[in-house]
Amino acid sequence: MSGPVRHEVEVEVRYAETDQMGVVHHANYLVWFELARTALCASCGHPYAEIERQGYLLMVVGAHAHYRRGARYGERVRVVVWIDRLRTRHLAFAYEVRRGEELLATGRTEHVWVRREDGRPTSMPPELREPFRALAGEDALPA
Amino acid sequence: MSGPVRHEVEVEVRYAETDQMGVVHHANYLVWFELARTALCASCGHPYAEIERQGYLLMVVGAHAHYRRGARYGERVRVVVWIDRLRTRHLAFAYEVRRGEELLATGRTEHVWVRREDGRPTSMPPELREPFRALAGEDALPA
Amino acid sequence: MSGPVRHEVEVEVRYAETDQMGVVHHANYLVWFELARTALCASCGHPYAEIERQGYLLMVVGAHAHYRRGARYGERVRVVVWIDRLRTRHLAFAYEVRRGEELLATGRTEHVWVRREDGRPTSMPPELREPFRALAGEDALPA
Amino acid sequence: MSGPVRHEVEVEVRYAETDQMGVVHHANYLVWFELARTALCASCGHPYAEIERQGYLLMVVGAHAHYRRGARYGERVRVVVWIDRLRTRHLAFAYEVRRGEELLATGRTEHVWVRREDGRPTSMPPELREPFRALAGEDALPA
Repeated sequence: MSGPVRHEVEVEVRYAETDQMGVVHHANYLVWFELARTALCASCGHPYAEIERQGYLLMVVGAHAHYRRGARYGERVRVVVWIDRLRTRHLAFAYEVRRGEELLATGRTEHVWVRREDGRPTSMPPELREPFRALAGEDALPA
Repeated sequence: MSGPVRHEVEVEVRYAETDQMGVVHHANYLVWFELARTALCASCGHPYAEIERQGYLLMVVGAHAHYRRGARYGERVRVVVWIDRLRTRHLAFAYEVRRGEELLATGRTEHVWVRREDGRPTSMPPELREPFRALAGEDALPA
Repeated sequence: MSGPVRHEVEVEVRYAETDQMGVVHHANYLVWFELARTALCASCGHPYAEIERQGYLLMVVGAHAHYRRGARYGERVRVVVWIDRLRTRHLAFAYEVRRGEELLATGRTEHVWVRREDGRPTSMPPELREPFRALAGEDALPA
Repeated sequence: MSGPVRHEVEVEVRYAETDQMGVVHHANYLVWFELARTALCASCGHPYAEIERQGYLLMVVGAHAHYRRGARYGERVRVVVWIDRLRTRHLAFAYEVRRGEELLATGRTEHVWVRREDGRPTSMPPELREPFRALAGEDALPA
C-alpha cells in the first residue's frame, strides 16, 4: 500500500507575519498551507491558476490548525503537504510545518470543487483525476 | 442550567480581505474571531491588552473554521463568540459569523495560558476566574 | 473658498495588525486608508461596492504614508480622509490617522478610473461627478 | 562613480495577496519591499533579525509606491532593492518590482535607527557602517 506523495515548500518568515507576541500570527499558517497546496498542484503539471482559468474553483470549506511552537522572523520553515482524502467532489489536504526537524504546527483543509461561472458544486476536473490519484496514493481512495 | 454568554461584534468587510474569488479570503476569519474574543474579554472589564501587560498570554494552540457562504466587500457581518470550555489552564472559544440571520461560518479556537516572561504554561490570571466563569455559564465548567 | 469635506472613521487596532515591534505594521495603514475612502464614498450615497458593480474600478496608482507614532493593540484610532485633488480621469485622497488628537500618520493615495470589462482608463462615472465635486470643495477643482 | 549595489529577491504571488480586482492588493507591495531589504541586509552578513537582537530597530518613517501593472496569482515577480540614501541616523531604500523585464511597480521607504530599549533615535549600528557604505556606493554618501 503506497501512501500519499509528500510535497514540500520552504517559506521565509516575513516581518509582517509576526505579531506583538514576537512569533508568526496564527492566521498566517493558513496562507502557508495555501502556498504548499499551490506547489503540490504545480508539481503534477496542473498549476492551480490554470485550473481556475479553466473554470474550476477549489473552495475551502474547512480549515484546521494545531500550533506547537512559534516561527520567528529570520527563520525559514518547511511546509509539507499531502492529499489526505480524495473523492470525486471533495478532497482534503494535510500539512506539517517544520523548522529543521522540529514540528511547529499541523493542519488540514477540506475543499469542494465549484464551477466558477455559477458557484455550483461540481466534480473534479477530468484532467486532474489521474494525477491527483497518483498523488493521493492508495490510502486516500474510496474502497 | 445557564449556557454561556454570547457576545457579538459587527465587522465591516475590507477590500483588502477579499481575494480573486471575489469573497473574503478564508484566513481572515481567524482574524475576525480574534476581534470577537477581544471584545468578549473587554465586555467583562478585562481588556486583553491589559491582561498581556500583566504578564499573561492567551496562546492559540488550535484553530478551526467551517465555511458555508462567502462574505463580500460592501457587507457588514456579525461575529458571535462564547466560551465553549473553561479550565484552569486552557479554554476554548466558539464562533458564528452571520450576515443578517444567514450563517456564513462557524469556528472554534483553543488556547492555553502562558507567562509572558518565559513562555511557560500557567493558570488563568486570578482576576479573570470569576468573570470568565460568569461568561462561560454552567455547561462549560468541570464537574 | 470652501475646503474639502473631511470624513472620519474609527478603527480598532487588531492583534493581527501588530508586528514584533509591538506596534501596527506599517503596511496596514494602507488598508485603513482604504476603509476611510470606502466610508467617504458611502457618505455621498455611492458605496464603492456599487460603483464596481456598475463597471468602474478606482485603481490605486500611488500610495504614500508618513509615520510619526505607532498605534497599539487595544487602542482605537481615527482615520480622517478627504479628496485632495479631483480631475475627470484621476483623483487623490489625503489621510490623517489620529489617536485622540495626537497625529500618528499621514498619507495620500492617487487613483485612476478604469473600466472593469477591459481595464482601460476612463472618466469618472457620471453619477459621481456632482457628489465628488461637493466633497472636494473648491480647492481641489481645476481652474 | 559607482552606484549602489542592487540586490534582488524572487517572490511567488500568494492567493491570499490578491483581491477581488484579480490582482495583488497594493498594500502587499510594502510587504514585498520588506522582504527585499531583509535580503539586502543578509547579503552583507548582517541579517536584520540579528540587528534587532542587538538592540536596534530600523523604523519605517515613510513609504511610497507607484503601481503600473498588477501582479497575478500564479506569477513570480522579482523585487530589486538598493540603498538610495545613507546617513548616520537615517537611510532610504528604493525598489522596483518586475515580472520578467516588465516594470510593475516602484517604491521607496525611509527609515530611522531607533534603540529597542527606549524607542529613542540613535545612530546606525557601528558594525553596519562599512558594509552599508559598500552597498550604498558613492552616490548615496554625503559630500
